Amino acid sequence: MEKYDKKGDISYSLGTTLTFELLLRKPEAATKIFVSTKQKRDATFDKLSVLTKTLGIPLIINNEKIFHSLSDKDNVMVIGEFKKFSSTLDNTKNHVVLVNPSNNGNLGTIFRSSSAFNAGGIAIISPACDAFDPKSIRSSMGAIFSMPFHYFSSFEEYKESAGTRDYYPFMLKAKTKLGDIKGKTPYSLIFGNEATGLPDRYLKLGTPLLIPQSSNVDSLNLDNAVSIALYSFSH
Amino acid sequence: MEKYDKKGDISYSLGTTLTFELLLRKPEAATKIFVSTKQKRDATFDKLSVLTKTLGIPLIINNEKIFHSLSDKDNVMVIGEFKKFSSTLDNTKNHVVLVNPSNNGNLGTIFRSSSAFNAGGIAIISPACDAFDPKSIRSSMGAIFSMPFHYFSSFEEYKESAGTRDYYPFMLKAKTKLGDIKGKTPYSLIFGNEATGLPDRYLKLGTPLLIPQSSNVDSLNLDNAVSIALYSFSH
Repeated sequence: MEKYDKKGDISYSLGTTLTFELLLRKPEAATKIFVSTKQKRDATFDKLSVLTKTLGIPLIINNEKIFHSLSDKDNVMVIGEFKKFSSTLDNTKNHVVLVNPSNNGNLGTIFRSSSAFNAGGIAIISPACDAFDPKSIRSSMGAIFSMPFHYFSSFEEYKESAGTRDYYPFMLKAKTKLGDIKGKTPYSLIFGNEATGLPDRYLKLGTPLLIPQSSNVDSLNLDNAVSIALYSFSH
Repeated sequence: MEKYDKKGDISYSLGTTLTFELLLRKPEAATKIFVSTKQKRDATFDKLSVLTKTLGIPLIINNEKIFHSLSDKDNVMVIGEFKKFSSTLDNTKNHVVLVNPSNNGNLGTIFRSSSAFNAGGIAIISPACDAFDPKSIRSSMGAIFSMPFHYFSSFEEYKESAGTRDYYPFMLKAKTKLGDIKGKTPYSLIFGNEATGLPDRYLKLGTPLLIPQSSNVDSLNLDNAVSIALYSFSH
């Protein structure tokens, strides 16, 4: 019960700020809140007590075991347990599409920047890493609790469900530069796997875009590339 | 000897690609190359043998211990040992200035994007995390071996040494938006700590800039913010 299981239907927010995000943005998913015995009885504790009582969510003190089994950080004083939830993408809005992302930390950071730049949702094409992994949740800084996202078994499945929209695959082989394009909502910004990028067949989809960069490096970090694209499209 | 010591004068590149970056871009720092007995005698191995022989750097096979003590990944087949090196910043070029960065992974990613967008160097203001930590090196994808960087004990020390240039501190309290500014070389893009940002006193330095973002999130991830700023200033 107290180890995260990718195939299970439960996950955890590790940390106080993150757990407040869970309670404020996705209260219907929260099932239990654990508070370490080391947590001081301060204003944060009071706020948490009031909030969980209001929401009718059990607040459990004195369960050190879950802290040891779920977190390798000593400073985690609060853990939220929640049921994995599903959401659907709004086709009138802009999407970030991640084809086979493999790194949970990157994925969480992409939730964070997608939220910062008002993306309408994130489509994740399997095989892919796990948005519900506590590491993804942590690096999302809680954005996973407000940003709609959905897993698809193939890009074609996503495309069939996504309505009429413009597609911008980000590829090092693209000829058009990011910044030369003004996107018209709704559009999808599409990114490939961290190591391999998008397959060549995406060169035939919509308008492939290049983030101009020096030849010093092979490519940008995936979450950096997504952030730059989101920033550029929103300005 | 075979654990990374922050205070020591030795560090390690973990992985084949990274070790080639060390040998090609910073050969004078490389002291030994370790190859796992599990490494196949393939074209990569041949290339490594020739390169180390040409450079006069010992190639050591059959040292599983160093692989176990330095790497938690099974797929690391090659490790480069090198002496920590120092570099100076070129004051005719643009700098990224990181005030008290705390995360080695972020720092490495900033090296990578700084290289991608042709920054001239990185100034790191102590206290700060460690650019030579194998984790920083790994997330830099080798950019640490070509991008000049220097540690300073205070921002003032950096400023005294940096010559005449324009300063752009990135702050959520700034009034001027990134994108409304066209930077003139040489300039410095300045970023605060991941959790706390820059102190208010930086509002009086140069032209503080804001990356416009929604109120949904507190801020962007540090390396994402740096990438967006570098991209915007280079276009």
